[in-house]
Amino acid sequence: MGENFGIYNLGQDEELMKYITSTNIACGYHAGDPMTMRKTVKLALQYGVAIGAHPGLPDMAGFGRRIMDISAEEIYGLVLYQIGALQAFAKAEGTSITHVKPHGALYQMANQNTAIAEAIAEAVYRIDGDVYLVGQSSSKLVKAGARVGLRTLNEVFADRNYEKDGSLTPRSHEQALIVQSKYSTERVIRMVLEHKVESRTGEEMNMRADTICVHGDSPDALEHVIQLSQALAEAEIEVVHPS
Amino acid sequence: MGENFGIYNLGQDEELMKYITSTNIACGYHAGDPMTMRKTVKLALQYGVAIGAHPGLPDMAGFGRRIMDISAEEIYGLVLYQIGALQAFAKAEGTSITHVKPHGALYQMANQNTAIAEAIAEAVYRIDGDVYLVGQSSSKLVKAGARVGLRTLNEVFADRNYEKDGSLTPRSHEQALIVQSKYSTERVIRMVLEHKVESRTGEEMNMRADTICVHGDSPDALEHVIQLSQALAEAEIEVVHPS
Amino acid sequence: MGENFGIYNLGQDEELMKYITSTNIACGYHAGDPMTMRKTVKLALQYGVAIGAHPGLPDMAGFGRRIMDISAEEIYGLVLYQIGALQAFAKAEGTSITHVKPHGALYQMANQNTAIAEAIAEAVYRIDGDVYLVGQSSSKLVKAGARVGLRTLNEVFADRNYEKDGSLTPRSHEQALIVQSKYSTERVIRMVLEHKVESRTGEEMNMRADTICVHGDSPDALEHVIQLSQALAEAEIEVVHPS
Amino acid sequence: MGENFGIYNLGQDEELMKYITSTNIACGYHAGDPMTMRKTVKLALQYGVAIGAHPGLPDMAGFGRRIMDISAEEIYGLVLYQIGALQAFAKAEGTSITHVKPHGALYQMANQNTAIAEAIAEAVYRIDGDVYLVGQSSSKLVKAGARVGLRTLNEVFADRNYEKDGSLTPRSHEQALIVQSKYSTERVIRMVLEHKVESRTGEEMNMRADTICVHGDSPDALEHVIQLSQALAEAEIEVVHPS
Repeated sequence: MGENFGIYNLGQDEELMKYITSTNIACGYHAGDPMTMRKTVKLALQYGVAIGAHPGLPDMAGFGRRIMDISAEEIYGLVLYQIGALQAFAKAEGTSITHVKPHGALYQMANQNTAIAEAIAEAVYRIDGDVYLVGQSSSKLVKAGARVGLRTLNEVFADRNYEKDGSLTPRSHEQALIVQSKYSTERVIRMVLEHKVESRTGEEMNMRADTICVHGDSPDALEHVIQLSQALAEAEIEVVHPS
Repeated sequence: MGENFGIYNLGQDEELMKYITSTNIACGYHAGDPMTMRKTVKLALQYGVAIGAHPGLPDMAGFGRRIMDISAEEIYGLVLYQIGALQAFAKAEGTSITHVKPHGALYQMANQNTAIAEAIAEAVYRIDGDVYLVGQSSSKLVKAGARVGLRTLNEVFADRNYEKDGSLTPRSHEQALIVQSKYSTERVIRMVLEHKVESRTGEEMNMRADTICVHGDSPDALEHVIQLSQALAEAEIEVVHPS
Repeated sequence: MGENFGIYNLGQDEELMKYITSTNIACGYHAGDPMTMRKTVKLALQYGVAIGAHPGLPDMAGFGRRIMDISAEEIYGLVLYQIGALQAFAKAEGTSITHVKPHGALYQMANQNTAIAEAIAEAVYRIDGDVYLVGQSSSKLVKAGARVGLRTLNEVFADRNYEKDGSLTPRSHEQALIVQSKYSTERVIRMVLEHKVESRTGEEMNMRADTICVHGDSPDALEHVIQLSQALAEAEIEVVHPS
Repeated sequence: MGENFGIYNLGQDEELMKYITSTNIACGYHAGDPMTMRKTVKLALQYGVAIGAHPGLPDMAGFGRRIMDISAEEIYGLVLYQIGALQAFAKAEGTSITHVKPHGALYQMANQNTAIAEAIAEAVYRIDGDVYLVGQSSSKLVKAGARVGLRTLNEVFADRNYEKDGSLTPRSHEQALIVQSKYSTERVIRMVLEHKVESRTGEEMNMRADTICVHGDSPDALEHVIQLSQALAEAEIEVVHPS
């Protein structure tokens, strides 16, 4: 969330806030700006939603979704920078961030590259050892977080397909996105209860789900969260804050 | 300090660190980047120099020295953002910022415009009420800081001339800068001991000096700080940290 | 037009193209990006709309609407840069730009400041002496254009109020914008036929109209251009290209 | 050349101009800005040096030296944009660009990826079919240029080592750079006369040399060009403009 920039608007943050328990807020590198960060932090507080930093690559033109060949050392710096910036807005409103989740291509890089995963885990730990680190389920990022001493959350996706190696189907692929439907909701419930999911090509995989992601810029994001929160309630699964 | 950016270098930070007690570190808007912020924080720690945030206007191309018509509300946001970012680097090294000083055109705007001064004071206070706010001697910024409950520091300039209204001679004026000399050093000592200075056009003015600024990008910055630290020692004036 | 940026969309360019004869395309400083510039140039060609460069201040976060204290010399450079960039997209599609209109705060600065007006006129002339320069009706920009040897166009606004000195009512004022209505349309027709308009506060003023502006980001932009093109046709006023 | 940015300086452009016949000027994406572009074009004109556009990746913080996963379609746009911008400065001084050479990571991507090479060749051709396209010797870029109908130049490097597959030794490798010496000069003369060079690991390779690159930001750039221009003269090799 918080992906507005200057005159530009993106997503339906206020509507979504009503149905979620935690949010990842853009920190001004891939999207967002100080005014938006402030507004989104206040909105999250108002709806009792846990606030997370969503640091991204320095690529507003590409919305942080283009892999860049950046060294782990530089990633340590730009993650620290962005978390600190969001932490300031949380602090100014009398609260604090509860979790950190890298965005877009940085998330992808962190899940697959140990040096980058460790740089991010280190940055998070040095700011606040009590913050949760969110990474793709069973990824190098989750493992690096645990090694450095952070509590971690295995994330699964309600609106994205998986390849058979457990990676996300790339956005350039026509089946990357999963449209909201009975199928998409049941698929998530199964990941939560059984820790299983089917890949895009039909393979059954293990997939532990501590936290469920819906992308705020998906056209049917609101429908996803509404249906999901209802289905989770019906399955008597309680959704709680990281904190 | 910390005004490098990517491949570009500026200033002689390490040399200067040996002679100063506090530094203002660029936060990535007018200059600086995460790698430089990290390096400069570590350097300050190594030399026992107090670390301050030096937030600027979002104008790297103009080095934050061009007045922009930005609302007080937006300035609140961009100051909070930048202080938070630098605070993260301080925290990652086990320390904390001790003061905040706006940079360049933002400093000028803050010293002369009450709404902007208050927005900055508010941002600083909300992050940390124990941080010192540095403003031009007797400026609206210093007053706004005091009103909000911050400890403030009246700053004077070793390398810049004053107009008779107490403002800095604009950089576009050929006499804006004061070159290091016996005169420049004695002028500072007089501000410290007698709270008096002569304007560019010869008028005598009151000028309280809690802290003395030398610009890191001045060609003779190093000479200024060496001569000044020696003259201050000879005058038996002890220079201490804000903390 | 052409004010999209990366993932962000703004305006209804394709719909608007059907009702206008010339367009001003953002050049990547205040809005726009290469992909958008290309797409918008192609769209203009497809609808037979004359292509103009719409250079702005280097301030994407402020959409180029914040006055900046930039020297005339630098403005010469950044206008040249942006016109050249758009000209390349026009040339790549086998066409050429017909006019240049500065955007937002740069437009305002150019209309009121002779040195800036002359810097812009000089930049346009040096790229192509056959290009029209568009400025606010009777402004310093229009006069500077004529002095340097350019053909100029006096522009009036369908969706903005005027102060009694002929300047635009600032966007911060609640009556800055004129909503589409019978009144707004008749007001424009009167400027075209009689060269007269009423200021926000009721004063009658001379206002020569060679070209009529509707802002692409106004919520009722499409309604404005539809009603205007119909009213102009009914009044038997033929709207033609600058070329 | 032209790699200054705002307050930041890089390279010794004026000194180098005395010894070279053609230059590649940064276009504001990886380095450079409008003021610098103007100044560098004027400098080149003054010394009779052929002016080339040096478009780069949109990554000032990384100096355009970090590979980014950008689509060929977007690269077409950003190359067109940058060439157009530089062309405007050339035109404003009554001259024109003679060649185009992509910079840094974009050069690397263009030399190795056919789709990107073709996008760049297409962009250059659409702006001006008479402009030379400069690529690494025998690269995909040179071939794509020839296919689209451009005249091309095979470039070799005076200050960089080659791997045995003909690619440049990456900058991250400690032997990436070749310091100026009798060896470095003789190595270039041999590429020019015999079209042969030794790789970093000693393999003999074919390497056709139409144009010789010295990086303006190398610390010994000036020494390289002075020694090279002397050695080329002694070998009775006449160095001429692309034009």
